[in-house]
Parts: sequence; C-alpha cells; structure tokens
Amino acid sequence: MGEPLVDLPPSGLGFDAADPLLARAAWSRLTEPGDPVAGALVGSLGAVDALRWLLDAARAPRQAETTLHRIAGGRPLAVAPAGAAEAPGRLAARDGSSGRDPAEDPADDPAVDPSRSDRRAVRQVLAAVRRWAPRLERLDPAGELAVLDRYGGTLLHPDAPGWPASLDDLGDIAPLCLWVRGEPDLDRLAQRSVSLVGSRACTDYGVRVTRALASGLADRGFTLVSGGAAGIDAEVHRGALLADAPTVAFLAGGVDRLYPATSTDLLRRAAEHGGAVVSEVPPGSVPGKQRFLKRNRLIAALTSGTVVIEAAARSGALSTANHAARLLRPLGAVPGPVTSMASVGCHELLRRGAAVCVTDAAEAAELVGYLGETAPARHGDARPGDDLDDVGKAVLDALPVRAPAHERSVARAAGLALADTTGALGLLELMGLAEQKDGGWRRR
Amino acid sequence: MGEPLVDLPPSGLGFDAADPLLARAAWSRLTEPGDPVAGALVGSLGAVDALRWLLDAARAPRQAETTLHRIAGGRPLAVAPAGAAEAPGRLAARDGSSGRDPAEDPADDPAVDPSRSDRRAVRQVLAAVRRWAPRLERLDPAGELAVLDRYGGTLLHPDAPGWPASLDDLGDIAPLCLWVRGEPDLDRLAQRSVSLVGSRACTDYGVRVTRALASGLADRGFTLVSGGAAGIDAEVHRGALLADAPTVAFLAGGVDRLYPATSTDLLRRAAEHGGAVVSEVPPGSVPGKQRFLKRNRLIAALTSGTVVIEAAARSGALSTANHAARLLRPLGAVPGPVTSMASVGCHELLRRGAAVCVTDAAEAAELVGYLGETAPARHGDARPGDDLDDVGKAVLDALPVRAPAHERSVARAAGLALADTTGALGLLELMGLAEQKDGGWRRR
Repeated sequence: MGEPLVDLPPSGLGFDAADPLLARAAWSRLTEPGDPVAGALVGSLGAVDALRWLLDAARAPRQAETTLHRIAGGRPLAVAPAGAAEAPGRLAARDGSSGRDPAEDPADDPAVDPSRSDRRAVRQVLAAVRRWAPRLERLDPAGELAVLDRYGGTLLHPDAPGWPASLDDLGDIAPLCLWVRGEPDLDRLAQRSVSLVGSRACTDYGVRVTRALASGLADRGFTLVSGGAAGIDAEVHRGALLADAPTVAFLAGGVDRLYPATSTDLLRRAAEHGGAVVSEVPPGSVPGKQRFLKRNRLIAALTSGTVVIEAAARSGALSTANHAARLLRPLGAVPGPVTSMASVGCHELLRRGAAVCVTDAAEAAELVGYLGETAPARHGDARPGDDLDDVGKAVLDALPVRAPAHERSVARAAGLALADTTGALGLLELMGLAEQKDGGWRRR
Repeated sequence: MGEPLVDLPPSGLGFDAADPLLARAAWSRLTEPGDPVAGALVGSLGAVDALRWLLDAARAPRQAETTLHRIAGGRPLAVAPAGAAEAPGRLAARDGSSGRDPAEDPADDPAVDPSRSDRRAVRQVLAAVRRWAPRLERLDPAGELAVLDRYGGTLLHPDAPGWPASLDDLGDIAPLCLWVRGEPDLDRLAQRSVSLVGSRACTDYGVRVTRALASGLADRGFTLVSGGAAGIDAEVHRGALLADAPTVAFLAGGVDRLYPATSTDLLRRAAEHGGAVVSEVPPGSVPGKQRFLKRNRLIAALTSGTVVIEAAARSGALSTANHAARLLRPLGAVPGPVTSMASVGCHELLRRGAAVCVTDAAEAAELVGYLGETAPARHGDARPGDDLDDVGKAVLDALPVRAPAHERSVARAAGLALADTTGALGLLELMGLAEQKDGGWRRR
C-alpha cells in the first residue's frame, strides 16, 4: 500500500491530539469494541503516541512498518493471532511466550522461524491501520466529551480513579475507556456485584424469577449488573431500584441515547440512584448488533459472577455466559420448564456443566458471594419419626394403626429381634408415637 | 443368649426345606429387603444350607457360633460393617480385603487385631439370627408359590434363566429372589432399559414431561422401569403401554396385591403386555415404608440409568437417584420451574452435580443408551447472515435499511478498511442481502 489512507489538512485531526483524555476518547471512536490490536497498541504506547503514530501511518503507509518498529523500541512485536477478538490478545515484545499456541500453526512457531511471528504481528497492525483510517477524518472527541458533560457523565480510563480493575482481566480486549453516566466509582460498585442476564423475549416465569433474584441479591448488598435491554435485563434494573440497590447497565450504543425507548426512564433512574449507565463507545454511537455482542464481555468481566435467568437457544445472554466462563468467573443458570423455549439456553449450560444450577437468591449469592456465604440446605418438611434410628423406623413402620398387636407380632412384622422391638416400643411410647392398649401396641 | 428363639415342632418348618426353590422363597419371607447379612449367608452357603443352619441356630443359640465357623469351612468370617444395609456388603472368608475401610475404625483393622473383625462378623450374624427367628414359625413358601402360580407368575433366583445380571451389582444387598408376574426374562428386558421415577405428588407439568419422555424412549426401544406408584410412576407405565413398549414395575409389597388401587388395572396390563410386575417380597407382604425405600435400589440397579422427572425435597425418587449414583449408573434430572416444590429435588441433584440435566427423550437416550447415541445439538432458528465471516457481519450490521450510504461511509460505520468493505458488499449483493441504489448501498 502506497497512497495515503486519509485526506486530512496538514494541521491534523482538528483537536489537541496531545491531550491524553481527548486522545483516548478518540481511540474509542476509531475502533470497534474489543479490537485486540488497538488494545495492545494503546496499552503499549499510550493513547497519545499511538494516535500520533496512526496518523503518520495513515498518511504515509509506506513508512508505517519502519516507524512501527521504531516506536516499539526497536523490538519485534507479537500480536495475538486469529480469534483474538474473542480472546484476550496482546501486543508485546516477542520473548518466546507470545501468547499464541505454536501448535496451532507450526510454520508460525517462533522457535522454527522467529521472524515469521514478527512479520505476522506487523501485518496485523498494518491491517488495523486500514480499518481505523476511515474514521480519522471525522473525529470530534471534544464534542463527544461535551455531550457527556451535559449529562453529568465521566470518561473513565485505566489510570483514572474508579476504573474497575476487574475489567483488566480482559487483557487486550479490555475497553479503551468507559463513558459513564451516574456513579463514576465503578470499581467500588463492582466489589460486591453480580451480573443477571437473560432474553429480551422473556416469559412471565422469567420475569417472576428475575424479581425474586434481584430483590434477594439487592437485600444481600450486591450491585446488580445487566445490559439495559428489554425483558430480563429491564427487570433486573427495575428490581434493584425497587430494593434501593445500585445497578449498572452496559449499553451497546452511546450513553446519550438510553436505548431501548421502553427502558429510557428506567436507565435514567439507574444513573441517578447510585448506579451507572456505561458504554465503551462515545455518545452518538449506534447500538449495532456486533456492539451488543461485544458489550456482553464487559458485563461478564465487571462482576464476580454471572447468572443467566432465561435464554433461548441463540440468546445474547449466552454470549455473556461464554465470556464469564472464559474469564473463569462463576456462572449460574436458572432452570425452567423444559417445555419453554426461553429456558433452552440455560438447560444447555447446565447440560454442558458450564453453569451451576441456581434457583434462588441464596444460591446465587453462594455462587458469586463471599467464601462461606452458603445457601441453606433444603430439608423439606420434618415428619414424625425423622430422628429415629433404623430399628425405631422399622418398628414404627410395622405398628398397626387401629387394632393393637402383640410385641411378638410387631417384631415379626418389622423383621427384628424381640428384644430390639421391645426396646424400640418403649422409646416410641416416650416420644408419643406409640401406645399400649389391650395388652398390645399400636401407633399414636 | 441361651434359650431357644423359636417354638417349632421337632418335625421342623412344615415344608421341604431341602427344596432349593422353597428354601429361597422362605428366605425372602424371613428377611427384610436388602439385609446384607442374609445376602452374604445365602450367597455363601446356598439357600438350603443357610436355612438349615438358621433353624439349628434358632433352636440352640448357644451352639450357633460353633456351627457358624464349621459351615463356613472353618475359616473366619467377615461381614460388611455398619451402614451395610445401604451399601453392598459381603460375608467372605477374611483375606485382608474385608470390604471395610479400616480407616473408619482403626481398632477394628484386621491388620491390628485379626480376631476382632471375625468376632464382629460373628456378632452380626448372631444378631441377624435373632431378627430372623420370629418369622421361622409361620413360614409357608409353598403356599406363597401357589399364590404366585395362580397369577401365572415366576420365582426368579440368581441361577435361573432370565435373572437380570445387572442386579448382581448390588452385591450382598441384591434381592434373594424375585417374584415376577408377566415376562420372566427380566435379563432381556433390562438390556436396553431406563428407569424413570418421580413424585406421587406430581404436577401437570411433570405429567406432560413424563408422557413426552416415556413415548420418546419407548419409540427408541427402551424398556421403561418405574415403581408402580401413583403420579409420575403411573404415567411412565401408562406411556410405555400407549407406545406398545415393555414396562417393568417394582412393587414394595407382594405382587398379588397390585398396589395402589388406582394403578391396579395399569399394573395388570403392564404384566400382560410384554412387561412385568416384580417384587422381592412374597405374595401377601404389606408395602411398608421401609420396603418402598429398599425397593428403589432394584429400580436403580436393573437399568442402564435413571432419570428423575419430578421430586420434592424428600421424595422417594431421590432415594432411587442416590442408589443409581452409588452404583455409578448414569443419573439424569429433569429441570422445572424454580417456583415448583415438585422440582426442588431435581434441582438439588443438578446443583450437586450428581445428575445431568435432561430435557427430552433424545437427551435421556444419550445418557443411558448406546455409546454415540447423542442428542442433536440445539441451534435455534437460522438467521440471515449466519454463515458470514466477521467482516461480512460487520458490513451487514453497518448497512442502512432505507437511505443508501456510500461505500466509504459504510466502511467508517463498520470500522473496516475500504477495500474489505467493498469486497464484503459484493458478497452481500450476491447473497441477496444488500443492494446498490443511487450510487450507494443499503440492506435488502
């Protein structure tokens, strides 16, 4: 590639690209969510230097490779390979542990040919320049920050106070920044938190279960995190607000548009009552399908664990579940009627052993809460004779209800020695479970 | 103990105790189901010799210990210890592998004091004599066999053709014999079989699921095994009959009384249509509570696996499940609404990881059927663009629905390089998902 990829005035991007906050905001506009090459590049160089290099590379693609080596300190680079958008990737000085599994492609094994993996990494970065370049022409991070400011919002970046450390587990697919409306201390909100997710197309059953889980977990002090969508997500946020607990909604589009319309008021209240509405794309961004899917990794990564309440076979909630599993976060699934299509995804998670069966708030808290925060065992109702030993149970079982029977006959019926039967009858009499009548014994 | 435990005429038991079939039938009357000492004794000596020894021992308890050593060939005995009624026990010549875990009670470790375990075994057998003796006085195996004969039944014993080999996995708690009405070749019926069990107090949901599972598994050639009780069990047998498949019911009482009354006709038809009604206790026996619980081990042991359809917190179906797990037979549980008490037991099994989640007949067959008999994966409905790669999906996602957009604008919206966008648009056009209009592109 030789000709410039952008048509920009010599003055540059039209904003102060040396301002770290503006540069970072620009990066969240330049890239689609979860771009591992952007994560690695910005992570390595910082937003300002990475943006400066990108601008040069887009203007003079022929020199990009050279400058790429120079800014990386002359060391060859390794970027995680194919599938990286779905797995934490990295851009790092090649040191033999390049984050790739050499077995996948022996020809690319650096041990076989060290220069191959470098060439591959460089190819990936240069390909990324071509997909980022079209957006260089219309950047307006200052304008987007002004919109955020109108809503009293905060732009969080990894070095800012309140940045949730849990998201760092995403590695190179961690968000470049977070556009937050409401409480900016997401790190505090995430400390004791749980993601409750489910289908838009939920059932009455799903709504009922969501209300019970949300209120029970709110009472236990959890921040309830979800995706702000209609259906189960909306019930999660609503349940938290009803219980006066903080709730966090991750949107697929910009936080200036509280989408969907049916949730607008709900999401505004979430941001106003100790919770937050959060997005990794700037104000004005459209909530496209791919962004919904990428957004799910943030829901899974922010919290201590995820519970899927209802999910059809292709529900987006399953993508959140897969992210939680990949991050080794605890994952729960609520069972439902096997006749309900809305529970098929939950049952699949249970069948695969990917999720733990969760039926109430106590069990959800056991899954994602503190060590030892165990749900009470289910005993069922106590019944007379529960605390008897085997002999006592057999004698009670053998006792007639009406006409009294002689000890010898009770022993025969119970299949017990006479002496054991006599002893057990005395005990049962003391417990008020047996009585003597007409020289025999019967139940009482 | 010195005085005789029985008051019998010198002529003896009143039947030909040297007849192996009569002697075995007598043992099934003498003992309660799952008595490991009886299983070990009869297994070691045979029904006739064991009965002869028991009679002597009951008449002259003082000599019992001496004769016990003599009939065992002079070798010391070991019987499985406490809890044996719930676990396969054994009575065997002590050879250092006595079937007990010495760690449980180091003082009883034969390596520490070999004579201790012998003394313990002898104590257990003599205690058993005291509980068996009361029933020696009224034995009538010939009469009970005559009753069975009136129903066209068969008494199966471990050496008889048709005896189901799968029950031998129970060890010393295997049944001493089986009183069978209907098809006597239980071994054949057990070859491809599944136990479906559940609560008496079932819900409409449970009934619906049972019908679907029963008919689907019957169509796949399974013998359906259950407990003949009201509720889920009855639906299992009914479903099998409707699908013209054999079904086996294990009763807690004698097979002359098809209990409960609501199932009498159903159980009779089960026995008449290629299936069987089976009990380990002789005709005339009452279906006591302990016998219901012991009966469950036969349901679990006969078949290749067990599926629990509905079970409350204390359902007897859970005892069947525990037996299946203990026997290392596959165990499935059908989930249900978390709001239903009738599914609490199933969800507990899933939570503990004791059971696999089963939602239809195909999944039940995968669990208990032949290797490779796998349930089809659940894909959900196919949607336009499913087979696109990531670039194609991103471009489709970015395409406007109404007013066409220029390629450059589509690339910017998708976050893709212009060249990649152009290529993807061509592909989408070929697939009929995009169209050109007024020099731009839109969805089709």
